[in-house]
Amino acid sequence: MSKAIIGVVGPGNASPTERQLATELGKLIASEGWILLTGGRDVGVMNAALKGAREAGGLTLGILPSEDKSGASEHLDIAICTGMNSARNNINILTSDVIVACGIGAGTTSEIMLALKAGKPLFLLAPSQKLVDFIGELDYPLPKVCDTPKEVIPFIRKRL
Amino acid sequence: MSKAIIGVVGPGNASPTERQLATELGKLIASEGWILLTGGRDVGVMNAALKGAREAGGLTLGILPSEDKSGASEHLDIAICTGMNSARNNINILTSDVIVACGIGAGTTSEIMLALKAGKPLFLLAPSQKLVDFIGELDYPLPKVCDTPKEVIPFIRKRL
Amino acid sequence: MSKAIIGVVGPGNASPTERQLATELGKLIASEGWILLTGGRDVGVMNAALKGAREAGGLTLGILPSEDKSGASEHLDIAICTGMNSARNNINILTSDVIVACGIGAGTTSEIMLALKAGKPLFLLAPSQKLVDFIGELDYPLPKVCDTPKEVIPFIRKRL
Amino acid sequence: MSKAIIGVVGPGNASPTERQLATELGKLIASEGWILLTGGRDVGVMNAALKGAREAGGLTLGILPSEDKSGASEHLDIAICTGMNSARNNINILTSDVIVACGIGAGTTSEIMLALKAGKPLFLLAPSQKLVDFIGELDYPLPKVCDTPKEVIPFIRKRL
Repeated sequence: MSKAIIGVVGPGNASPTERQLATELGKLIASEGWILLTGGRDVGVMNAALKGAREAGGLTLGILPSEDKSGASEHLDIAICTGMNSARNNINILTSDVIVACGIGAGTTSEIMLALKAGKPLFLLAPSQKLVDFIGELDYPLPKVCDTPKEVIPFIRKRL
Repeated sequence: MSKAIIGVVGPGNASPTERQLATELGKLIASEGWILLTGGRDVGVMNAALKGAREAGGLTLGILPSEDKSGASEHLDIAICTGMNSARNNINILTSDVIVACGIGAGTTSEIMLALKAGKPLFLLAPSQKLVDFIGELDYPLPKVCDTPKEVIPFIRKRL
Repeated sequence: MSKAIIGVVGPGNASPTERQLATELGKLIASEGWILLTGGRDVGVMNAALKGAREAGGLTLGILPSEDKSGASEHLDIAICTGMNSARNNINILTSDVIVACGIGAGTTSEIMLALKAGKPLFLLAPSQKLVDFIGELDYPLPKVCDTPKEVIPFIRKRL
Repeated sequence: MSKAIIGVVGPGNASPTERQLATELGKLIASEGWILLTGGRDVGVMNAALKGAREAGGLTLGILPSEDKSGASEHLDIAICTGMNSARNNINILTSDVIVACGIGAGTTSEIMLALKAGKPLFLLAPSQKLVDFIGELDYPLPKVCDTPKEVIPFIRKRL
C-alpha cells in the first residue's frame, strides 16, 4: 500500500495571509502522517506549505515543471523533475488523493479544474466568492469550502 | 514560416447554441486560410468547430488525449495522438497563435488559464458574466469578450 | 478520415550522407501525398527531411520539444509546441502511421524503441549492423531494413 | 536539500535471474539510505527492485504510466500517477540522480537513451555484449558496466 498524498495547490505569487494559511495547512497535514505534495517551487503557497510540513517532521513531495532542481523549494524531500512545464499540473492532481486549494491564480485554477475532471476530493480554503460563484456554473459537485486549515483536516480524513 | 493556427477550446458537453457558434467560428477561421486547432474529439465544441472548418475547405488539426484515433472527430485532417490525457491541454495552448473560448467546462477553463499563463491572445465568445467576473480577479489582462464569431475575426487578424 | 502521417526520426547531429538520404526520403513521402512528421528542429535529419518534403510540395508537421517556435525548422508548415522536451518523442511515434529511422543517435534510438512498444510499422534506412544486432535481441519482430529511400516507399504504402 | 534518488530501469518481462539481481540491487540501495525509483508497475525488474528496497526498510517511489494506481506494485511507498503512458519514461530519468539498467527491453532501452541525452550517471548491470557494442557507436561516453549489484554501489556513491 502506498502512503496517502495530500496535494496543496496555490499561487506562486501569494499574499502573506495565503502563505501563512499554507504553512499552517502543511503543518497539520504532516502531523496526520500524510505526505504533502505541491508544485515544488521555492515561491508562494508551494514553498510555504512545504516549509510547514517540514517543520512538523512530515515528508514533502514536489512535482517540478523543470528538467532539474533549479527553482525547487529547499523544503522538498523528494523532487520529481518533469521537464514538462505547466503540463505537469495534471500529475499534481492525479497523484494526490485529496486536493486543497489555498489562494488563487491561473495555474491554481487550472489545477482546480483538472481535479474536478478527475473526480478528486477537492477543498477550497477561504476562496473568493467569485471563484465559488463561477464553479457553481460548471457541471460538477461544488467543492467543500473551509475557512481555516484546522477545519479542513477532518474532511480530508473522511475521504482517505 | 509555419502557418497560423487558431485554437478553439470548448466543452465536449456543449449546448446546441454553443455548437452552432463553434461551427460558424470554424467556418470563418477556415475562410481566412488559418488552420483550426481543437482538442480533436468527436463531441461538443471540438467536433462542431472542426465540422465548420472542413465545410469551408480549411485544414483541421486535433490534439487528442488518447494514444490512438479512437474517439477522434471525423472532421480532422491531422490527428496528433498524445497519449497524455488532460496534460495535452497545455499543447493545445502552446501550439495556437490565438485562442478563442466558446462555451465553458472544467477542461475549457483549464485551457483558458493556461492561455493566460502563456500570455497568448485570448478571446471569449459569449461568456457568462460569472466567468468574466472571476477572471477579473486574476493578475492578468482581461481577455477581449466578443458576442459573435464574426466579431472575433478582425481581432484575431490583428494579433497574427 | 485524417491524412496519412509518415514519421521520419533521425539525429540532430547527422552526417552529410544521412541528411542527403533524409532529404530524398522527405521528397518521396511528399510525392505520395503523405504528411511528413519529424521532431521539427532546424538541424540534422529533421531539417533535411522537412526541406525535401517542402520542395516536393508536401505538407510538413513538426512536434517540437520547446514551448515556442525557437529552434524550429523553416521548412515546417505546422509546428506543434509541446513544451515537454524529450517526453515529446512518444507523441512523434503515436502520431505517425508508419515510422522510418534514418541515421542513429540517443533520441532516435528512444523513438525506435517507443515504436516497437507501440507496435507501429517501422523501417530502418541503411542502419548499422550493430543496431540491427541489438534490436534482434529484443522481444519484437525485427523491423524491415531498407537500403535506399526509394526502396522504403512501396513498403510504407502496404502498411497504410 | 532533497534526498538522493537512484533509478532502476528494467523490463516488465524479466527473467528470474534479472528479477533476483533487481531485488538485491533494491536492497543495497535502500541500505545506503537512498530512495529507489522505478517505473512503479507490479511486474518484472520494477516490482523486484521495489520489493528488495522495501524489505531493507527503504523508501520506494514509482512513476506510473497510468492515471491511477491500477497495476502499481504493492511495494510502493509513493505512487506518482502521470497518466502519460511511455512519455513518463523521461520523468524517471530526469528525477533520478543516478540510473542503473538491469536487464533489457524496448522501454528500458528508451530510458537508457534518455539518460545518455540528459547526461545522467548511468550504470549497466550485467548487460549483453550487443547492447554494449551498440551504445559504443553513439556519441556519448560509454556507461560503466558492472557485473553485480554489490559492485555498482560504490560507483553510485561517488556520483552523488
